[in-house]
Amino acid sequence: MSNLDLNTIAAQLEGLEETIIQKLIDRAQFAVNAAAYKPGMSGFSSAGDKSLFDLRLRYQEEMDAAFGRFQVPEERPFHTDLPGSQRRVNLADSPLAPIDLAVVSCTVQLVTDYLAYIPELCAAGDDGQYGSSVEHDVLAIQAIARRVHFGSLYVAESKYREAPAEFDALLARGDTDRLLEMLTRRDVEDRIQRRVAEKVSYLQATVNPLVRTEISPETVLKLYRDTIIPLTKQGELRYLEARGVRPTA
Amino acid sequence: MSNLDLNTIAAQLEGLEETIIQKLIDRAQFAVNAAAYKPGMSGFSSAGDKSLFDLRLRYQEEMDAAFGRFQVPEERPFHTDLPGSQRRVNLADSPLAPIDLAVVSCTVQLVTDYLAYIPELCAAGDDGQYGSSVEHDVLAIQAIARRVHFGSLYVAESKYREAPAEFDALLARGDTDRLLEMLTRRDVEDRIQRRVAEKVSYLQATVNPLVRTEISPETVLKLYRDTIIPLTKQGELRYLEARGVRPTA
Repeated sequence: MSNLDLNTIAAQLEGLEETIIQKLIDRAQFAVNAAAYKPGMSGFSSAGDKSLFDLRLRYQEEMDAAFGRFQVPEERPFHTDLPGSQRRVNLADSPLAPIDLAVVSCTVQLVTDYLAYIPELCAAGDDGQYGSSVEHDVLAIQAIARRVHFGSLYVAESKYREAPAEFDALLARGDTDRLLEMLTRRDVEDRIQRRVAEKVSYLQATVNPLVRTEISPETVLKLYRDTIIPLTKQGELRYLEARGVRPTA
Repeated sequence: MSNLDLNTIAAQLEGLEETIIQKLIDRAQFAVNAAAYKPGMSGFSSAGDKSLFDLRLRYQEEMDAAFGRFQVPEERPFHTDLPGSQRRVNLADSPLAPIDLAVVSCTVQLVTDYLAYIPELCAAGDDGQYGSSVEHDVLAIQAIARRVHFGSLYVAESKYREAPAEFDALLARGDTDRLLEMLTRRDVEDRIQRRVAEKVSYLQATVNPLVRTEISPETVLKLYRDTIIPLTKQGELRYLEARGVRPTA
């Protein structure tokens, strides 16, 4: 990502919507399965008080770290103590300010929000499919995290460059309310929601309801409204705050 | 899976189509990236002559094995020397004959076919996104393998039970041609192809072509026609041959 045109960034975010929706649909094929999130019930020996979900996320991120995933700015990990990459990844020149990207991370809140959201997404009860449930959970939150952090970083930098003096002044006096206002475009948020609702319908238009569980547009919209959009703005704010304390690159 | 009604099995196979198509679309967002499949070019130290694709498949299956994936009959692994599961998986009573499921495995041929298929699926050239490419490759072939082996096992057992004497006679005299004929239902294959083509269109109906690469129905049909359907029949045949040498359960 080296283009900071806001329309280009918005289009990139749009391109991540199908992936997020599809992964939510995948997870919704299984019941809530609360046991998969209970500490100490993973069945893994010496896993201590970790849940099966915790373990799956850990294993997935260790694998992804080895393959170089977290060298990409918008790929912010859920763990801070992952092994290094086993390979060198070629990255495009970054247009971002040289801040510590870890300060932008919204992963802790994202896990909390996502776990609370599972009962909205999935049928109540327990179907015993714990392994499949957490497999799809992890793919879903990775897709959501990518969207949140991509927005946080590139939207913030792009907006900053449109009005650096104004942002600098607000950052200097710590006016968070006005900053969040400048980061909010209600018309864009409305457009995202209309588009996401439409995609949820189309992505399931040919499904055989006897064998695939369908999810409603409202279920996905709720995640966008209550988690994805607010966390993205949160991340934008953190990026700008970190950016404010150092000279422009 | 404990219901051997052929319509129920067909519906289960239908439910896997969205997943396969979606994972092919995910992979098609990246170029062919031939370097990711070249031996010894993974960048991993001490990976010998493995390619990045080989390594990703290995890491993924080691993780999945720990979480219990390959205890499920239709989940046949691509490796034969994986570590054991760290947890006990509750499995429904199996209606399958107690054969060694490894003999049904079509994974070697599937990898060969899939790697040859990548240039049909993806744009020519190299975009440097090797890590993402092999990540999606592995998810795609796992989804395809699940479909192939699910069909191989349950369709074969179901068809056998419809006409055990006839199958026993053909198996006793090794009449592979006639067996394959009995396993072929041209009308079902035609219906699958029409349905898959329709799903490919719907699953991409709301895509913004500026940010998402689209794939054609024909591209997916080719995989069904040349790989998925023939390998499923191959697996059915192997299942029946293994079944033939032991008494009915």
